[in-house]
Amino acid sequence: MKPLPEFSISCPLPISDGERILLAHGGGGKMMQQLIATVFRPALDGGNLEVQHDGAVLPLESSRLAFTTDSYVVHPLFFPGGNIGTLAIYGTVNDLAMCGAVPLYLSAGFILEEGTEMDVLRRVVESMRQAADACSVQLVTGDTKVVDKGKGDGIFITTAGIGVVKHSLKIHPKSIRAGDKILLNGDLGRHGIAIMAQREGLAFEGAIESDAAPLSEPVQKLLNAGIRIHCLRDLTRGGLASALNEIVSVSGLDIHVREKTIPVCEPVKGACEILGLDPLYVANEGRFITIVPAEDADRALSVLRTHPLGREASLIGEVKPASTGWVTMTNAIGTNRILDLLSGEQLPRIC
Amino acid sequence: MKPLPEFSISCPLPISDGERILLAHGGGGKMMQQLIATVFRPALDGGNLEVQHDGAVLPLESSRLAFTTDSYVVHPLFFPGGNIGTLAIYGTVNDLAMCGAVPLYLSAGFILEEGTEMDVLRRVVESMRQAADACSVQLVTGDTKVVDKGKGDGIFITTAGIGVVKHSLKIHPKSIRAGDKILLNGDLGRHGIAIMAQREGLAFEGAIESDAAPLSEPVQKLLNAGIRIHCLRDLTRGGLASALNEIVSVSGLDIHVREKTIPVCEPVKGACEILGLDPLYVANEGRFITIVPAEDADRALSVLRTHPLGREASLIGEVKPASTGWVTMTNAIGTNRILDLLSGEQLPRIC
Repeated sequence: MKPLPEFSISCPLPISDGERILLAHGGGGKMMQQLIATVFRPALDGGNLEVQHDGAVLPLESSRLAFTTDSYVVHPLFFPGGNIGTLAIYGTVNDLAMCGAVPLYLSAGFILEEGTEMDVLRRVVESMRQAADACSVQLVTGDTKVVDKGKGDGIFITTAGIGVVKHSLKIHPKSIRAGDKILLNGDLGRHGIAIMAQREGLAFEGAIESDAAPLSEPVQKLLNAGIRIHCLRDLTRGGLASALNEIVSVSGLDIHVREKTIPVCEPVKGACEILGLDPLYVANEGRFITIVPAEDADRALSVLRTHPLGREASLIGEVKPASTGWVTMTNAIGTNRILDLLSGEQLPRIC
Repeated sequence: MKPLPEFSISCPLPISDGERILLAHGGGGKMMQQLIATVFRPALDGGNLEVQHDGAVLPLESSRLAFTTDSYVVHPLFFPGGNIGTLAIYGTVNDLAMCGAVPLYLSAGFILEEGTEMDVLRRVVESMRQAADACSVQLVTGDTKVVDKGKGDGIFITTAGIGVVKHSLKIHPKSIRAGDKILLNGDLGRHGIAIMAQREGLAFEGAIESDAAPLSEPVQKLLNAGIRIHCLRDLTRGGLASALNEIVSVSGLDIHVREKTIPVCEPVKGACEILGLDPLYVANEGRFITIVPAEDADRALSVLRTHPLGREASLIGEVKPASTGWVTMTNAIGTNRILDLLSGEQLPRIC
């Protein structure tokens, strides 16, 4: 894996102090061309791609592609461990990774609020470029709109991604079987708590940084090792508990996990206790589960642990025959509870 | 071309009167699943595509693909001749068409403001499905975020699109040559004026409907007829004048057009006079220019005129050798003027 970028970004281009986004930056005239030339173009790949006015023509050596999109509205825009730009890259790369695809190309659509500081936009776009470099994807096409002050919230970004699917597995909740093992690549809850702490100005013991990271490499390692992956799922909004519930509802099978095998770091545990949150429902941006046949589980775990984003990987549970339609968990003191789907959410605008 | 959908849409699904979007609809829990199941899923293609949790795996029979994205923030959401949903489909289909690509797959990311009426969202999503059907593209993947009331403006949509490129032309402003002819497929200014009239509550003589329409069919007709297209450009933000200026700035060649060959309907002319707007700078969503070698111009015009979206097609000007770097126009009374790029925009949030 290329080293993840630092997010303390200097701003190399000259820009007048306090310059702000104006409605006219979205109007298709000179000011928009200037914005594109000075802020966006440097972040787009200008290599040998045929970048058109409004689209890119791209080579593709595969007859199966993966396609995904996500909108990002995280508040605040910057948080420990990342910002809306890095999320917009990693989040979409991760959705492609969860299809078992190798991510290749990204698009980015910006909705900017009039009055947003140009320097904020610059920092976001620059970290998008660095994040894209870190996971070897190319930002190839984009768009910008500006909305009136009070009709947006600084910066919203929607990225879409294209990847190629080289394996012949059917990675899907419907592919899981009773007896399959469930692996988790690391500790839970850091992204959601980092955002919450930043938003509310809370200081917890021990710095909590978002776990935001690109998951395509660990997934490709599993595929390259011949692991027969049945299902992949990243643990974003709603966290682990919601992901498991979705898999249960699609597959029709039950799932059982053991709390003591699910890593949660002490600062996150402490913060969750204070805030009345359950880390199993808190959003992550660099965590995923892999569901594999029991025979492949040990080897898959070894493969995961060879990657920096899987060092703490653990086997957290298994798929059970269809019975109750529930996700159940044996908790730390040995009793069982049901992990239900929440009605709404614990934390809004987490990504 | 399949008939364009009607936009007076009934709402067949039962929904409680006055139901509104809540923050919890974006939270990854039961309410979000319900929103997806009742509003979005019916609009996504449920055919034989491998739709995953967060992405779609798609077949593709080409080694060259076109990829594009656009965000839509049009205000108001509904206007004569369409709404934000139809724009989000046609606009992205048109960006693919301008690469000479056959549009295949679309993604849609929704940013919803808390408190938006569910029925409004339903009508928008339903018209997206109808618009996608009308241009034979499939909406294959999507995402929804909800932002706090006062941090958005009802509905923002970002679509991305994938198309296949089957021709071997290099359709690009750099491919144009002195002597090339410039063709326009229809009259200018109807989209911008329709939005403006709706927004400001103005009533002009003669109903002005948006020209929003998918342009992939007329472009494919030109390609199938063997027309050696040098450049294509849709005339959205900034209108015809801005598009021509962009082509001049990329190609380094001059462009000259004749005003009397550029169709503008009477109601648009009248509205522009009252509002102090120049129709050459007003946005369109179903108009494009095609730049072709002089030898192909007559045939290209004939081909365009066989399609409903090209019935009024005309030859409006030509590419000139590099000299001033200007777009010039002979106006109705025979004098020449420079068509400069506007600094900002005439009308904000037009798409």
